[in-house]
Amino acid sequence: MSINRRLPDEITALLNAAGSRRAFLRDSAVAAIAAGGLAACKPDPSYAQGASTARDSDHSGGTTAPNPIAATPAAQADEMDRMHEAGVKAFPAKTEGKGNQVLAPRMDRNVKVFDLTAAKVQWEVEPGRRVEAWAYNGQVPGPQIRVRVGDRVRINLKNDLDESTAMHFHGLEVPIDQDGVPFITQPPIKAGESYTYEFTVPNSGSHMYHSHLNAAKQVGLGLLGAFIVEPRQARAIEKVDVDYVMILNDGMHGYTINGKGFPATEPILAKLGQKVRVRFMNEGMMIHPMHLHGMHMTVIDKDGWEQPAPWKCDTLNIAPGERWDVIVNCNNPGVWAFHCHILPHAESPHGMFGMVTALIVEK
Amino acid sequence: MSINRRLPDEITALLNAAGSRRAFLRDSAVAAIAAGGLAACKPDPSYAQGASTARDSDHSGGTTAPNPIAATPAAQADEMDRMHEAGVKAFPAKTEGKGNQVLAPRMDRNVKVFDLTAAKVQWEVEPGRRVEAWAYNGQVPGPQIRVRVGDRVRINLKNDLDESTAMHFHGLEVPIDQDGVPFITQPPIKAGESYTYEFTVPNSGSHMYHSHLNAAKQVGLGLLGAFIVEPRQARAIEKVDVDYVMILNDGMHGYTINGKGFPATEPILAKLGQKVRVRFMNEGMMIHPMHLHGMHMTVIDKDGWEQPAPWKCDTLNIAPGERWDVIVNCNNPGVWAFHCHILPHAESPHGMFGMVTALIVEK
Amino acid sequence: MSINRRLPDEITALLNAAGSRRAFLRDSAVAAIAAGGLAACKPDPSYAQGASTARDSDHSGGTTAPNPIAATPAAQADEMDRMHEAGVKAFPAKTEGKGNQVLAPRMDRNVKVFDLTAAKVQWEVEPGRRVEAWAYNGQVPGPQIRVRVGDRVRINLKNDLDESTAMHFHGLEVPIDQDGVPFITQPPIKAGESYTYEFTVPNSGSHMYHSHLNAAKQVGLGLLGAFIVEPRQARAIEKVDVDYVMILNDGMHGYTINGKGFPATEPILAKLGQKVRVRFMNEGMMIHPMHLHGMHMTVIDKDGWEQPAPWKCDTLNIAPGERWDVIVNCNNPGVWAFHCHILPHAESPHGMFGMVTALIVEK
Repeated sequence: MSINRRLPDEITALLNAAGSRRAFLRDSAVAAIAAGGLAACKPDPSYAQGASTARDSDHSGGTTAPNPIAATPAAQADEMDRMHEAGVKAFPAKTEGKGNQVLAPRMDRNVKVFDLTAAKVQWEVEPGRRVEAWAYNGQVPGPQIRVRVGDRVRINLKNDLDESTAMHFHGLEVPIDQDGVPFITQPPIKAGESYTYEFTVPNSGSHMYHSHLNAAKQVGLGLLGAFIVEPRQARAIEKVDVDYVMILNDGMHGYTINGKGFPATEPILAKLGQKVRVRFMNEGMMIHPMHLHGMHMTVIDKDGWEQPAPWKCDTLNIAPGERWDVIVNCNNPGVWAFHCHILPHAESPHGMFGMVTALIVEK
Repeated sequence: MSINRRLPDEITALLNAAGSRRAFLRDSAVAAIAAGGLAACKPDPSYAQGASTARDSDHSGGTTAPNPIAATPAAQADEMDRMHEAGVKAFPAKTEGKGNQVLAPRMDRNVKVFDLTAAKVQWEVEPGRRVEAWAYNGQVPGPQIRVRVGDRVRINLKNDLDESTAMHFHGLEVPIDQDGVPFITQPPIKAGESYTYEFTVPNSGSHMYHSHLNAAKQVGLGLLGAFIVEPRQARAIEKVDVDYVMILNDGMHGYTINGKGFPATEPILAKLGQKVRVRFMNEGMMIHPMHLHGMHMTVIDKDGWEQPAPWKCDTLNIAPGERWDVIVNCNNPGVWAFHCHILPHAESPHGMFGMVTALIVEK
Repeated sequence: MSINRRLPDEITALLNAAGSRRAFLRDSAVAAIAAGGLAACKPDPSYAQGASTARDSDHSGGTTAPNPIAATPAAQADEMDRMHEAGVKAFPAKTEGKGNQVLAPRMDRNVKVFDLTAAKVQWEVEPGRRVEAWAYNGQVPGPQIRVRVGDRVRINLKNDLDESTAMHFHGLEVPIDQDGVPFITQPPIKAGESYTYEFTVPNSGSHMYHSHLNAAKQVGLGLLGAFIVEPRQARAIEKVDVDYVMILNDGMHGYTINGKGFPATEPILAKLGQKVRVRFMNEGMMIHPMHLHGMHMTVIDKDGWEQPAPWKCDTLNIAPGERWDVIVNCNNPGVWAFHCHILPHAESPHGMFGMVTALIVEK
């Protein structure tokens, strides 16, 4: 099992090999790289303009962009195509910061200790678009916690925000005094203070941790992360080659997958014949029916609990707070679009943006 | 198996027979028609006024409508009832154009060829309400494609729009170069150009075809259709008397079922004891929990994939991009309302509108 | 089986015992009450200010509230905490009126007769926030009807509104002339008139009754209720200690559970080891993914129909018109938050509001 192993440059090379994506798809990736190498991919900020605002962007300042007032319909259509292409060519675009990185615990005797600090940071959602984020350890989503059922875990939470916070372990059946609801199970953690949670991990599955104080704002700004609990014994269907956590959000940062909007989203990489597990998590305020092109998904778990029988789909509706685990048998090679099917969350007249990524199956 | 076999006039006759719907419900439809014939059903545009705008409509110009400023509560209530009745009596209202019509392929040796042209048309959503639509072959939804697993199909797409387009076969596990995502799997199809897709149909079920370029706009305006794939061997539960595709949309045309808003929606007709299959498809941007009165639905397929065990409901939530197939055992005679249960998608103070139709079970 | 048996004062005592909720959680509830009794809980209207309006509330008039203009970040954060605490401490807050109360039928020979009157009332959603409601028998939701499959029931509906109405039995497979759709199955019930529905209850499960005329408004204002049908023979999994109906709404009254917003919502009470059945019903216009802390839910029924196999989750998405029945095995003592996970439906900068309640498991 691996979490994405390729560097962004390698992925870009794959995608742009030989100046043509067809070549990649038809031939082996290695051959394609040999034939073409890295395509020239100049920075083009225009693709992101449709993503986060309703304002029509101003193209008139560019040297290549036509004047939209004077443009013929054909010129306007060409300009649309150019912006679409720029977004696709930029994928996966480099941005500063990467969320959802697995956090290795330090051991205190038999306790796995995770140190988290909540603080304001600047976060680059797409190339050049920086926003204020409230983040754990400077990451959006926060660091991924991965433990096993029965582990003793301790989370030291330092609050470097200007307001109080608290942490809820969403989906974990912890004792009530570790549940993270201010004034019911604990006092709020004031600005500048620290607080320690400690419990024995009670149940397996794809869970989350996030703020439970002023949460509509704090979670919307980034105070969330994945809390993955491995079972004592994996089921046969869980034995996969790639295990990918996909956290959806739709707050003040726009429509994001793991804290980034297309083309800065991260593709999922697999080889033909491999199995990929995707752990969908929705930390937003809206549903996101995620659609995978070219292959179906087999749904195995809901909120960390095994479904009585796996079932298949190509579009899976993820509601806020839900987690759904699916398996994809990668039997169809190609660069497969993987996006929210609420189309205004994924495409504008300026091209794809927001909740779009790809599952790349290499021959 | 049949797709709706009755002419609109016959349906209207059934619904309005004897000036009373009770008579129809109590007696046999034939007897009711014999007893009453066609009810007088003068055109009444007022029922649609609540459907597409938030503006309060102006009733003061009519000869029968009371002045709403001066009206007593009782007169206002009567006027509301009058508008509700007008909408119901008009159902199913005639409008120009019918979408989702099965398109017979022409054969090129062993290849089933479907010719589609994308172009702007005027589309009558409800009586008298015409909107700009971007349509395949002048239909919203586009022509229904029905093939069988293993068929070789070719789609010739002519783009008569002012901007580029592309076609994605949503749910079909086609090879990557037939997937229809511009700049990833193919170049965009420019205005005036044509493009040909060809593949062997890989998997059965209720699927869709639609634009995948500027899709939030292009699909919202009508560039979508059903792509139904019959299995090689039908399951016992699939053997039905009526097979009905119900495509939901909620874009610039308002809330529609198969391109029309109530009372211009088409009722589903069945005889007592028959089985109806409904293939729900959501091409919109919102969920639509569809509620059937009087009988339950047995859910058999999700996105063209068999559910592990059929399950029952009367309200089924259809999210954007999803397809759900259900069976209704028509064991309760009557005219059963069938509507989205987000009530503002189905009823206004001026009566029912938008996502409302009926399943009519004749004794 | 019992429906909540505790008086609000007792619940408040439990929650505030010994000035500390920890004490309750650690010790037995009885001991906690003995140690502390009722906490002083002065009325504090500030917690509700974030619930229903976007306006920022005015704190400057109070004697204890700091001037928000001059406040330091620390003072502002303290003020936020104070408002959060006030809301939690007020829970469960007393308000006038209680909806969803079981209505005992009167018998007319073998017929169970329920008399309902639809009329405008003032309804206190949260302490001090009174709204116009359109209610059956003065309750929002209307009185709970509980009968058994095969029962003969009669509903006498008196319309004391200013406009027409009609009643639909959502989920019940009644004969068409009892289906409640004006101008299709019956005439509208005019203001001042009465109408009688009568039928033999055909199918078991968690169903609803509500207006089907101008329903987006009439249901939004409160013309709805639960219609629970016990089966002839209960399944083993249905044998529970507490049976709780939870009706969600999101119309003109704000985000409500059984007609009330937090902190006026009612907690669900159970003892350690007991089983609770929750019957979720959505009468609103939005989805509400309900999240239970600390324990999972086992889904047994959809719209009154048994699921082929029970399945588990901690967050269940309830769409408008849907009903889902779940079982909670109360194996984790504590005061467990139970709320919609669309966070803006549950928490504001002023604290929790709207769709929040608790499942309290007493040791």
